Amino acid sequence: MQNFMEPKRVALIGISRKSGAGSFNLMENMLTFGFGGEIFPVNPNAGEILGQRAYSNVKEIKKEIDLAVISSPRETTLSILKDCVAANIKAAIVVNQGFNDADRRGQEMQQQMTDMARRDGIRILGPNTLGVINSFNNFTTSFMPVSKERAPVGLICQSGIHLVGPQRFSGKIGKGIDLGNACDIGFYDALAHFGQDPEIKIIAIHMEGMNQGKDFLSLAARVVKDKPIVVHKSGRSKTGARAAMSHTGSIAGNYRLLKAGLRQAGVTFLDDGGHMPYAVKTLLNLPLMPDSRIGVITYSGGAGIMVSDGLEKHGLHLAAFSAETIDRVAALSPQWMPLTNPLDIWPAVMLHGARKAYSVALKAVLNDPNVDGVICIAIAPLPEFSFLDVSETLNTVMEEFPARKPVIAWTYGPNIAEVEKRYESRKRIMAYPTLDLATWALSLLIDRYKAIHPDRQP
Amino acid sequence: MQNFMEPKRVALIGISRKSGAGSFNLMENMLTFGFGGEIFPVNPNAGEILGQRAYSNVKEIKKEIDLAVISSPRETTLSILKDCVAANIKAAIVVNQGFNDADRRGQEMQQQMTDMARRDGIRILGPNTLGVINSFNNFTTSFMPVSKERAPVGLICQSGIHLVGPQRFSGKIGKGIDLGNACDIGFYDALAHFGQDPEIKIIAIHMEGMNQGKDFLSLAARVVKDKPIVVHKSGRSKTGARAAMSHTGSIAGNYRLLKAGLRQAGVTFLDDGGHMPYAVKTLLNLPLMPDSRIGVITYSGGAGIMVSDGLEKHGLHLAAFSAETIDRVAALSPQWMPLTNPLDIWPAVMLHGARKAYSVALKAVLNDPNVDGVICIAIAPLPEFSFLDVSETLNTVMEEFPARKPVIAWTYGPNIAEVEKRYESRKRIMAYPTLDLATWALSLLIDRYKAIHPDRQP
Repeated sequence: MQNFMEPKRVALIGISRKSGAGSFNLMENMLTFGFGGEIFPVNPNAGEILGQRAYSNVKEIKKEIDLAVISSPRETTLSILKDCVAANIKAAIVVNQGFNDADRRGQEMQQQMTDMARRDGIRILGPNTLGVINSFNNFTTSFMPVSKERAPVGLICQSGIHLVGPQRFSGKIGKGIDLGNACDIGFYDALAHFGQDPEIKIIAIHMEGMNQGKDFLSLAARVVKDKPIVVHKSGRSKTGARAAMSHTGSIAGNYRLLKAGLRQAGVTFLDDGGHMPYAVKTLLNLPLMPDSRIGVITYSGGAGIMVSDGLEKHGLHLAAFSAETIDRVAALSPQWMPLTNPLDIWPAVMLHGARKAYSVALKAVLNDPNVDGVICIAIAPLPEFSFLDVSETLNTVMEEFPARKPVIAWTYGPNIAEVEKRYESRKRIMAYPTLDLATWALSLLIDRYKAIHPDRQP
Repeated sequence: MQNFMEPKRVALIGISRKSGAGSFNLMENMLTFGFGGEIFPVNPNAGEILGQRAYSNVKEIKKEIDLAVISSPRETTLSILKDCVAANIKAAIVVNQGFNDADRRGQEMQQQMTDMARRDGIRILGPNTLGVINSFNNFTTSFMPVSKERAPVGLICQSGIHLVGPQRFSGKIGKGIDLGNACDIGFYDALAHFGQDPEIKIIAIHMEGMNQGKDFLSLAARVVKDKPIVVHKSGRSKTGARAAMSHTGSIAGNYRLLKAGLRQAGVTFLDDGGHMPYAVKTLLNLPLMPDSRIGVITYSGGAGIMVSDGLEKHGLHLAAFSAETIDRVAALSPQWMPLTNPLDIWPAVMLHGARKAYSVALKAVLNDPNVDGVICIAIAPLPEFSFLDVSETLNTVMEEFPARKPVIAWTYGPNIAEVEKRYESRKRIMAYPTLDLATWALSLLIDRYKAIHPDRQP
């Protein structure tokens, strides 16, 4: 995959002379993204593209090309690939659609691509792909605008949507590989690459189809010891499977078997793809949890009830706080206030202020040997009521503690987006939009703990 | 409830002299919120509060008071209520905690409040409540900061969290009633009020406990013919029920029985409280759907697969598009492009631009007699790629059509918050963060159609 992710010399075959808004010019996008290597545009009808000499055929370039990116009508693709082989190019991305995703003629042509990859020493990514993005060396082959973010997250997908809009799918991504129709390079290759990539700490995978089941599973079982792998598989339903067939020509496969196999391998498998960004940020940033005893600190008794429902749904338990924990908070509360878990500190906030009350409570709960993880519930106020915002207070408390117990924040109020950013600013506390997701996220930390420490007792 | 929601003269008993940041001064909050009536502060130790003469006892006021708001230590609350009765006050809000939410002594005092309400002709809201908010006449009794928003949404809850942070719980609210421990005024009274309030078009209810089951159900069955009612009940789990007991002293009741009864009555019942904002905006803004045949238009085949999974999960179906619909989009697409539902218009976008392609596709799908509702999937680009943003295009198309088929947008990309606002700006299209929620939202529109037209065939 090195040729795909970190090429020095790239040939762009079938690149258009048009540039600017609406032209989807891949070369322009590559330059904007900051690629520092050499680009060789190939277009027999253009003398020059974006100020660079255009070659009429890739064979004319006469330099060692690491990667060819082909975007040209499907009828010309095979002969261009042959030219690439003749020019001794070892890696090609076929961007255009119209193969297994289209008609019988397209399927025949894709089969010929597969044969060529097996026979002629060229590896092919695609067809029907935006290719790759590597923010760490400013490289992308996407003709759609993509963001650059040096996050240690490697994404493997089959649809450009994941590279263009990772916010919805995986959160931040640092590197991405869009397999498209996967005529040659598949999930196995991409996972093997990210598995050994030191810049990648977690791997997010959106599958439509999977036909390398057995090898992939044993690879995943090895990689997952080192790096979390999170998988969502779409095309789960009958109609979804038909849609997958027509999108990338994927055979959707047996969902339940795949899910069972991946879970067995220690992979975090998601039924709802919309949960991927939360799974990724949880497993990337929070410490794992050996057991399920959760301490809840809350401004609101109402929220304490909701969180209890979430905990039970996701197999977690309310910790039985030690007497010391209760005593510390009781010292700040009215005598009549029943203190238990969830720990309702609102009366203490009224008497001593939010920062004092929350700081005392969080320290006590983090020190409590009966607690494995913590949920903090607090308001996200507008700036004029910032004395109720404890994001900075809690982050300061966290600095006194090693990263051994995960701490999650759930906020409500008129300023959620801003305050959540503050909670997450030091990557010690993660925030979630619903208590269902907050409690679910904690359950992922137990699952992964068990997957990589199968013999350890909690 | 009129005295609570639209009082002219309000006595604030036990109000503090302190004001400004961190003082939680209810009178200051009430003034900031814009209350135009008369306020009578009562505090025996203060001559003047916020520039107004303070009375030492409510009986001294000698004017007809519509509502008393009591925030004073629990030991004083009953005698203050007696003074209110003596002063011929018919409505009181007890803000403070320490009753059924606390110890045995608190329970005894709450029982005495209930007795007083039944016997002495005073209605009591609370204790343990922020009281009410009525944005339509700039009135609130909340000591916490709350937002003013003249949305036709009436909220009934038992925890101030819902008034302070409606964004997480119900979305925008125009009026709210926090029942707190509900010693007297309960869900029945609040629902009856919003049921006949012409400024309220939809009612959102967050329950912790419910002990007026039968009367409430028959009232709900009547109200729901006119206005959607959405209910979430927390304290579902065993631990949640225990937490509810300690928060408002509620008996959580049998969750499954309540759910079945409410559904039978035509209420939209949510298992996940985090879904409430989406349920409310869906039922408030989108037309109902008699049947489940959904047309999907997408920039991305990958998203088409995901949406198919969501449709199947929520009991919806991919519509079989008419030949005319397919023909109209085929005229813009390459010949090899297989067109079906989901309708992948990306090749048409590449050839004719996003606005042309999406406009043709949406018109065709809205005109298609085989379609009951529509999901539009498109990118949320940064401003420099705004030619890919079709929010304005789709809203313009909607103006040519009567509000008969719901249209939902799902976007991905780097500018989601901004672009979603544009989609929703004319309240004809609603946007959702995940495809699971988008498809679920459509299913609510069928459920409500069936609930209010039990005899009509689709």
